[in-house]
Amino acid sequence: MLVVMEHGATSEQVAGVVRLIEELGYQARPMPGSQRTAVGLVGNDGRVEGSRFETLPGVAQVIHVTKPYKQASREWHPDNTVVTIAPGVHVGGDDITLIAGPCSVESEEQIVAAARAVRAAGASCLRGGAFKPRSSPYSFQGLGKRGLEMLALAKRETGLAIVTEAMDDEGAELVAEYADCIQIGARNMQNYSLLRTVGRLGRPVLLKRGLAATITDLLLSAEYVLSEGNAQVILCERGVRSFDTAARNMLDLTAIPIVHKLSHLPILADPSHGTGLRDKVIPMARAAVAAGADGILVEVHPNPERALSDGAQSLFPEQFAQLVGELRTIATAIGRTITPVPGTSTAGVA
Amino acid sequence: MLVVMEHGATSEQVAGVVRLIEELGYQARPMPGSQRTAVGLVGNDGRVEGSRFETLPGVAQVIHVTKPYKQASREWHPDNTVVTIAPGVHVGGDDITLIAGPCSVESEEQIVAAARAVRAAGASCLRGGAFKPRSSPYSFQGLGKRGLEMLALAKRETGLAIVTEAMDDEGAELVAEYADCIQIGARNMQNYSLLRTVGRLGRPVLLKRGLAATITDLLLSAEYVLSEGNAQVILCERGVRSFDTAARNMLDLTAIPIVHKLSHLPILADPSHGTGLRDKVIPMARAAVAAGADGILVEVHPNPERALSDGAQSLFPEQFAQLVGELRTIATAIGRTITPVPGTSTAGVA
Amino acid sequence: MLVVMEHGATSEQVAGVVRLIEELGYQARPMPGSQRTAVGLVGNDGRVEGSRFETLPGVAQVIHVTKPYKQASREWHPDNTVVTIAPGVHVGGDDITLIAGPCSVESEEQIVAAARAVRAAGASCLRGGAFKPRSSPYSFQGLGKRGLEMLALAKRETGLAIVTEAMDDEGAELVAEYADCIQIGARNMQNYSLLRTVGRLGRPVLLKRGLAATITDLLLSAEYVLSEGNAQVILCERGVRSFDTAARNMLDLTAIPIVHKLSHLPILADPSHGTGLRDKVIPMARAAVAAGADGILVEVHPNPERALSDGAQSLFPEQFAQLVGELRTIATAIGRTITPVPGTSTAGVA
Amino acid sequence: MLVVMEHGATSEQVAGVVRLIEELGYQARPMPGSQRTAVGLVGNDGRVEGSRFETLPGVAQVIHVTKPYKQASREWHPDNTVVTIAPGVHVGGDDITLIAGPCSVESEEQIVAAARAVRAAGASCLRGGAFKPRSSPYSFQGLGKRGLEMLALAKRETGLAIVTEAMDDEGAELVAEYADCIQIGARNMQNYSLLRTVGRLGRPVLLKRGLAATITDLLLSAEYVLSEGNAQVILCERGVRSFDTAARNMLDLTAIPIVHKLSHLPILADPSHGTGLRDKVIPMARAAVAAGADGILVEVHPNPERALSDGAQSLFPEQFAQLVGELRTIATAIGRTITPVPGTSTAGVA
Repeated sequence: MLVVMEHGATSEQVAGVVRLIEELGYQARPMPGSQRTAVGLVGNDGRVEGSRFETLPGVAQVIHVTKPYKQASREWHPDNTVVTIAPGVHVGGDDITLIAGPCSVESEEQIVAAARAVRAAGASCLRGGAFKPRSSPYSFQGLGKRGLEMLALAKRETGLAIVTEAMDDEGAELVAEYADCIQIGARNMQNYSLLRTVGRLGRPVLLKRGLAATITDLLLSAEYVLSEGNAQVILCERGVRSFDTAARNMLDLTAIPIVHKLSHLPILADPSHGTGLRDKVIPMARAAVAAGADGILVEVHPNPERALSDGAQSLFPEQFAQLVGELRTIATAIGRTITPVPGTSTAGVA
Repeated sequence: MLVVMEHGATSEQVAGVVRLIEELGYQARPMPGSQRTAVGLVGNDGRVEGSRFETLPGVAQVIHVTKPYKQASREWHPDNTVVTIAPGVHVGGDDITLIAGPCSVESEEQIVAAARAVRAAGASCLRGGAFKPRSSPYSFQGLGKRGLEMLALAKRETGLAIVTEAMDDEGAELVAEYADCIQIGARNMQNYSLLRTVGRLGRPVLLKRGLAATITDLLLSAEYVLSEGNAQVILCERGVRSFDTAARNMLDLTAIPIVHKLSHLPILADPSHGTGLRDKVIPMARAAVAAGADGILVEVHPNPERALSDGAQSLFPEQFAQLVGELRTIATAIGRTITPVPGTSTAGVA
Repeated sequence: MLVVMEHGATSEQVAGVVRLIEELGYQARPMPGSQRTAVGLVGNDGRVEGSRFETLPGVAQVIHVTKPYKQASREWHPDNTVVTIAPGVHVGGDDITLIAGPCSVESEEQIVAAARAVRAAGASCLRGGAFKPRSSPYSFQGLGKRGLEMLALAKRETGLAIVTEAMDDEGAELVAEYADCIQIGARNMQNYSLLRTVGRLGRPVLLKRGLAATITDLLLSAEYVLSEGNAQVILCERGVRSFDTAARNMLDLTAIPIVHKLSHLPILADPSHGTGLRDKVIPMARAAVAAGADGILVEVHPNPERALSDGAQSLFPEQFAQLVGELRTIATAIGRTITPVPGTSTAGVA
Repeated sequence: MLVVMEHGATSEQVAGVVRLIEELGYQARPMPGSQRTAVGLVGNDGRVEGSRFETLPGVAQVIHVTKPYKQASREWHPDNTVVTIAPGVHVGGDDITLIAGPCSVESEEQIVAAARAVRAAGASCLRGGAFKPRSSPYSFQGLGKRGLEMLALAKRETGLAIVTEAMDDEGAELVAEYADCIQIGARNMQNYSLLRTVGRLGRPVLLKRGLAATITDLLLSAEYVLSEGNAQVILCERGVRSFDTAARNMLDLTAIPIVHKLSHLPILADPSHGTGLRDKVIPMARAAVAAGADGILVEVHPNPERALSDGAQSLFPEQFAQLVGELRTIATAIGRTITPVPGTSTAGVA
């Protein structure tokens, strides 16, 4: 931490800063400059509240040099984390993982049809919401536990790993029972109680970036999960709020190389929520892979025009199949490959 | 809802839109224009998913005319809601309610000293966190139930009503036991499970605007509480994320007259979190009252330099006292008054 | 400037940073910490490009400690600048200056009627655009030189000082001939050619904050004018772009106390462009004065329903008169007064 | 245009809206709904000011259905515009155009070395600033006319087409003399005087998106150039302001497919300014091409560590060469190719 003094701060004011640093058990390193003095605090383990210093007379600014997260940081863990969602389905290595499926689980027929379609196109994981956070209390809220059972059925039928969202503690425990990976949605990215809960459930966690979350915020939220002992965290860029209403959100693909530099955790992109518009999903999925994403999360519906939610951003199965072909070529440009479709557990699958 | 067709849409495409509207049980009103046709959907009760139409051929745009919230809307409830936090402490009438106290409850001495100081200056409610949502898992997280007991003690000592935050279902039930008003923080504004829970607890709810929440989002979150049968909702503007790091957040005071036009619910401002800087809190508290806020929520600490959290934005008691004097004058400019300090229940209070 | 090394940077990498600092003619102050080393650069006069260091191996981050502006900074000029727009019309002292009038000059009758109305209500300056920057090339673009002549007429009739916008070099010279203060609009805040031009014209400059300008950007743009030798600069907060479309812009009133701390230049608020909605202009004008603004710039039209531009945000004259009364009371709360209406030069004014 | 009445608006209020529409010479189409009435305005040619209606009693909202731009719109010009910068160098067809070079022209040696390097790697155009808009008046401002002469030399030496920025009318005329394409920078995107000037100079214009410009704003600024009779406009996404300081700007790649749907004009991406960080430029250049960009504008410097400006975001020549190889593979994934290097006019080029 660096405490920058005002131009013209007195030597007593500098001494006051030095005194407080020492009172707190750290070492002070005053650094007089031609225009102002700065005082370094040495030995900070990340828990000093800078605000204690901002209130001292003569202080202009407090600058944090140490990153506020530790376990999520690449500095403390240089090698990439590879998260294993299911046997053979890894996120964060050389492979690019495709997670696809409808916004919501609507029926057995729908989810099994979706699972078959995305598997045929090359996806290794099935997504689909049983618990749906909706801005309006009057919108469809998901099928709950029944939806989870349908996802489990789709898994039995196709062998795909299951990723689905939990919105509260009770839901998280249910999801952990039925699914391979628990998704925490953007609106709950700073629901710290829920983060602690999923940190204790022993399942991989897919953590989506909040609508106004900085990358530091995202890594701090990951730190909540990691600090409970769960190292299996996958991040996901899904668009942030912007001033332009031309798209539903602004997909910040630069977050991908930034996260890769700052953290060892894998990061996916969700171009469906990131744009909100079907014809933008395809180019932005390609762009995400070109930017280095460890996978994509994309909405595909067997019949988007009849979807109970997010129909306008869901791909038709044939669009998804064509997209996967394009992604294979793009992956080769950067020396990566698409995660293979997992082996199946039933004979019913083509 | 209005479905706008592309320039050059065919009459079959228009007919397709009309057909889907009628299939869904509504009436269609085609409106041919000089440049394009639009088709009105009549009879929408707010639950039609526009995305069903965006996918039809020839459709350029879907425009929602009906507001997505109902019970929070002034159209359906023209008179101001006045929320009663405690006997004599109302929010939303002619009075301006002052809620003050430290960021966190730290000790019996601290919270009682804070309560006495803010009461002496003119506040009618005490704020103070027992459960603290912190971006970092390594920051001070609050005293929990013990903190609530200290708030109850401060209430017995001073007669002030208590406002404190809940972060999860279990915490909300505890808060409802000890406090007069349950605060939902910005990070949980779209934690719909928690909103439903506090909608059922029968206590007034103070709902803070999320960091990237539009005013529509805020009113939709209020709608979650209202739709559970709890009409006692107070909104709070506390700053949103912006591109300028000169302040912690950007306090959007225009939200106050906007909410007053769209909704019957009262709205406060929190200039402490809204700016993050002590010397900005005072002018922005004045500005909030001048803009028509129904009250302010402000951090005051008996000894800010020793605060365990948010010290840099907490006022000294004497600063708060001077502020209240200024607010009284500003209130007269717009025909309002400051809510009087409540009668006390113990003899120990000056 | 502080060059922060990566955790694990080698001593050769640290030496490389020290070497480049010394090559550039500054002193290096290495500051080894418990987790990483930082190297201070001493003697920076504000012109070192940090990017030279970001490219060196082992460097994690470059932190600027010195502010990038000088002449606009309060550190180098502690006393408030008081700008004199016209005899008796000062901005930046104890008085609060009211600048009012229509968005555009439309006709002699309109601008004289507007001038009389705002003068009667208590304004000391008349605003009104002769050159109008409009997002669309098909919108009304202003009357140009003829509009300036009409403003001059309104000045002769009422004695009000004139503030009007210039959009290019040629226009700026014309405006300097006819008006008392040259306004630079938000869209031209970083039109550096124009800033240099108005820095040489010897007229006070009213510089509006750009739609995505940080306060540092605003002060840097002021620095362009100051660096040409023109010290008469008035800043203006007029709302920035935000993610919420509920208002035209987000009026950032906290900018007022922030600018007052960082700079000696006066700052106004423009609640008309800052909100874009007539019924929000009044509360936000009050809020601006309560926040400490040195004046307000507000659109008033003798007949807003017939305005050629910005009718929906223009006040009726009687609304403005009532607002001025409220502002007088608010000003007393903070020990300020409203600038008196200037003496008139003709007998024709009531 | 659609005028939405308040719930409970009286029939007189509806009649008032109808009357004003008819007075203005349009047809009114009232559309009574179950909750509120809306009145359509038919025959709007894009110039009706909605604000005239917002002020009428009983009006809740005015919704614009017609787009505010015409000549830039794909609705009125369905086929892609292909801009010819120089013989054989087209932007907007199947080819992807690579424009590369240093931030600033610094010397003959530097610019010729840069030109040779980017040509060898596969670029068809050379970029390099002679006039530099810098936030601070104390930063390097470019070599001006001398810089243009150096660019002309580099063109003679390599045959590359030249793209360089103009900041004012005088500079634009000079640039038109020396360069093949005039760049308008982000800070001048709404400098309408300059847009009109370059609309009359008969040279292709590369128009960069402003820091807070919506896509509609960008297309409206293009409309200024088009409305002067210059149809050769290339748009460029270069990042917008965001709340996250992790990158210099937030590169909004979704703007590319959005512009392609709304407009016939080609659009490039500038990942150098869009991220501000060298190691992010490469993945984001790949992502831009994958998203469908018609080309990229990228900073390459023969010796980035010695650059006078933007060194930290400039690629080393060998990095650029590797990037071009990756882009060739990505282009094949979407059926496109990289624009070939133009034939040279001197024997001195390899």
